[in-house]
Amino acid sequence: MSPERLGGPSPAPRAHVVILGGGFGGLACAQALGNTDIDVIVIDRRNHNLFQPLLYQVATAALSPADISEPIRRTLGRYRNIRVMLAEVSGIDTAARAVQISDGGRVAYEHLVIATGSEYNYFGNDGWRTWAPGLKTIHEARLIRQRLLLAFEKAELSDDPLQKRALLTTVVIGGGPTGVEMAGAVSELGRFMIARDFRSLDPADLRVVLIEAGPRLLSGFPENLSDYAADYLRGIGVELRTGAPVKDIGPHHVTVGQDRIETGCVVWGAGVKASPAAGWLGVEPGPGGRVAVGPDLALPSHPEIRVIGDTALAQDADGSPLPGLAQVARQQGFYVGKALRRKLLHNQDSPPFRFRNRGNTAVIGRNAAVFDFGTWQLRGRLAWMLWAIVHVWLLVNFEKRLLVSLQWIWRYTTRQRGARVIDESTPQVPATTQRSET
Amino acid sequence: MSPERLGGPSPAPRAHVVILGGGFGGLACAQALGNTDIDVIVIDRRNHNLFQPLLYQVATAALSPADISEPIRRTLGRYRNIRVMLAEVSGIDTAARAVQISDGGRVAYEHLVIATGSEYNYFGNDGWRTWAPGLKTIHEARLIRQRLLLAFEKAELSDDPLQKRALLTTVVIGGGPTGVEMAGAVSELGRFMIARDFRSLDPADLRVVLIEAGPRLLSGFPENLSDYAADYLRGIGVELRTGAPVKDIGPHHVTVGQDRIETGCVVWGAGVKASPAAGWLGVEPGPGGRVAVGPDLALPSHPEIRVIGDTALAQDADGSPLPGLAQVARQQGFYVGKALRRKLLHNQDSPPFRFRNRGNTAVIGRNAAVFDFGTWQLRGRLAWMLWAIVHVWLLVNFEKRLLVSLQWIWRYTTRQRGARVIDESTPQVPATTQRSET
Repeated sequence: MSPERLGGPSPAPRAHVVILGGGFGGLACAQALGNTDIDVIVIDRRNHNLFQPLLYQVATAALSPADISEPIRRTLGRYRNIRVMLAEVSGIDTAARAVQISDGGRVAYEHLVIATGSEYNYFGNDGWRTWAPGLKTIHEARLIRQRLLLAFEKAELSDDPLQKRALLTTVVIGGGPTGVEMAGAVSELGRFMIARDFRSLDPADLRVVLIEAGPRLLSGFPENLSDYAADYLRGIGVELRTGAPVKDIGPHHVTVGQDRIETGCVVWGAGVKASPAAGWLGVEPGPGGRVAVGPDLALPSHPEIRVIGDTALAQDADGSPLPGLAQVARQQGFYVGKALRRKLLHNQDSPPFRFRNRGNTAVIGRNAAVFDFGTWQLRGRLAWMLWAIVHVWLLVNFEKRLLVSLQWIWRYTTRQRGARVIDESTPQVPATTQRSET
Repeated sequence: MSPERLGGPSPAPRAHVVILGGGFGGLACAQALGNTDIDVIVIDRRNHNLFQPLLYQVATAALSPADISEPIRRTLGRYRNIRVMLAEVSGIDTAARAVQISDGGRVAYEHLVIATGSEYNYFGNDGWRTWAPGLKTIHEARLIRQRLLLAFEKAELSDDPLQKRALLTTVVIGGGPTGVEMAGAVSELGRFMIARDFRSLDPADLRVVLIEAGPRLLSGFPENLSDYAADYLRGIGVELRTGAPVKDIGPHHVTVGQDRIETGCVVWGAGVKASPAAGWLGVEPGPGGRVAVGPDLALPSHPEIRVIGDTALAQDADGSPLPGLAQVARQQGFYVGKALRRKLLHNQDSPPFRFRNRGNTAVIGRNAAVFDFGTWQLRGRLAWMLWAIVHVWLLVNFEKRLLVSLQWIWRYTTRQRGARVIDESTPQVPATTQRSET
């Protein structure tokens, strides 16, 4: 193939719009620019978009990684004006308007959209990451699944009652939606699995501890929903420890307050920080490392650069910062895509971004979820059904929608877990810090 | 939990029947002993049974690992007389009638069934394993999938036409069913994926080389089916090299005869050897490391030890050795299970094992397969449909049967590949020799 086919005599690819990150925000932006004359490049270091809200189901063996990930090339393959690059961004040359790639290459842009997401924040204790993986990547979800299943297998073989009990103890750190979902799922999965599939374990020996440093679970939700979640979790046997931060995490223990908890599996879900975009741009990061943007989601100092999703510090109409949710990223992506199309094709400006709240939700167990729509709330079985419908609907691809819903329906009826695979080569150490950033 | 619940005062577990290996043979044997008063222990170092005939579809991103694996505990959970141990066997003390576990433990048996399968044979070049993984475990299939997809991604970014072409070259070694299936699938997947999802690649640059040291493909099948397979593969663009053994394999090349082929992905499917059971038993191994057994599948020197499946060298009624097929393992497992039940419960002997040939099959492409039933043969689209029906049927679990068939139907219509996930932490080195044995 001749080099001309790569885009002309210039050695560096060049595009009207370069989008960093193929998550919800980046993909929505690309789709809004699809099948136009605008030349678009999407850069991601992963080849897939991950449906993170369901990642805890991979960690608890209900779904396979491929069920909740979509190859970026497949999503964007139908748009002939969009190219996809599997590459890692190392910096941005705002003066020359070029993105630097970690292999040394550069990609020039006219307009840049940064949608590189967030990563877990270990608050200065990055060594904990090894023992307490978060739930941001397939690798981490698979690691948690392996540790959880292996702990049960080791407990089955153990003759020592103390060791058995330690191996059957799972500690979940962080009382946000991820922690609540994970604690509920482990408690339900564990009790069912022990009763059905293990001969020398007692369901009563299963212990799930959910630790939250703040005063209550689900602090982003109204207090009555927090109380409901706490009651429900206690009812299915989850031990709650609120108001006490974690002091130490090791290979087989978590220390919280004065207590040392011996454990077989630790999951981290205690807080996120933005991708390092502020550093690339040379701007002062806001809370959580996020980059402050104006009402058009552009940098005030660089109107040709937009930042969206978890990386952006954008404000709602009332001045409050927008939360790090998939629906925010998605709406911002569509907004920026449409705004760029209007700008580049018709040279028109756009009205400021306005977030439309579709409801904030967390699932707690097999029959229970909470929904907060601002003016009204929903909880219990009806909220669970709504949660399931919404999440199936959100899965970007028809096939996945159909298959995942079939699996859910089947598992809801039979309480089976289909993805209980322990890989032959159990990964013992999570991906490096650098690799888990985006 | 009190230690009494683990099976009495003896520190070592003891069972009437101990089955080593939870593959097709071991599971069939366990199921035949299910819900009786016979105390059964199944030992495997993996927690799942893998449906190996479809593993090439994981490697080519059509299926997820969990689609073709079944937790052993789930299959056997309904039988209250069967215990499952996730452990690695290190030896057998035939005098004391005990299995040695690699952590130092022992499991005593009255009757032992060895069903530990086979592994790929690199014919003394074990260093090749790093560059040319086989298709025996989920880990290897995932590794091949990663390398294949990453090679395409790197080719898309490359400016060098020679490097591009090398990255788009896949070499498959071994012209048996696995190699033929893999070569056909890569050729079809690659051309479709390039045309749809990549902007700077040309489908004409895709190269798939299938190497067979012997004179023809599918040597276990009649010659007319071999010819059909060769014609079909050539028709979909696979380059065949028969009669020439591989001389060297490195990270980016394969040398065959005088030619050095630069490649982005190598797959090994060139021959198997039995699990190391002959060494455990202290008997002289037969061809391929297999253990010779009598007509009742027992060791002549130790009638309380049976060997089945790929590990056994058993003879057909006409004296020819039985091939290493899932259907042989399965029939032998059921036979041994029933024979032990008859022996232990009624003290009756059983007639010798007789293999019933259900037909030998290999799939070649999206529309083509071959079937050999001994007295008659089938090939082409009808054989493909029969192959698909048989394989869906064989999947042990109802849910998987339903889901996998839905995925197949969907993909057959749309030519989509659902499982094109490149893990964030790409494994670069396959599992160690030891771990891939069973």
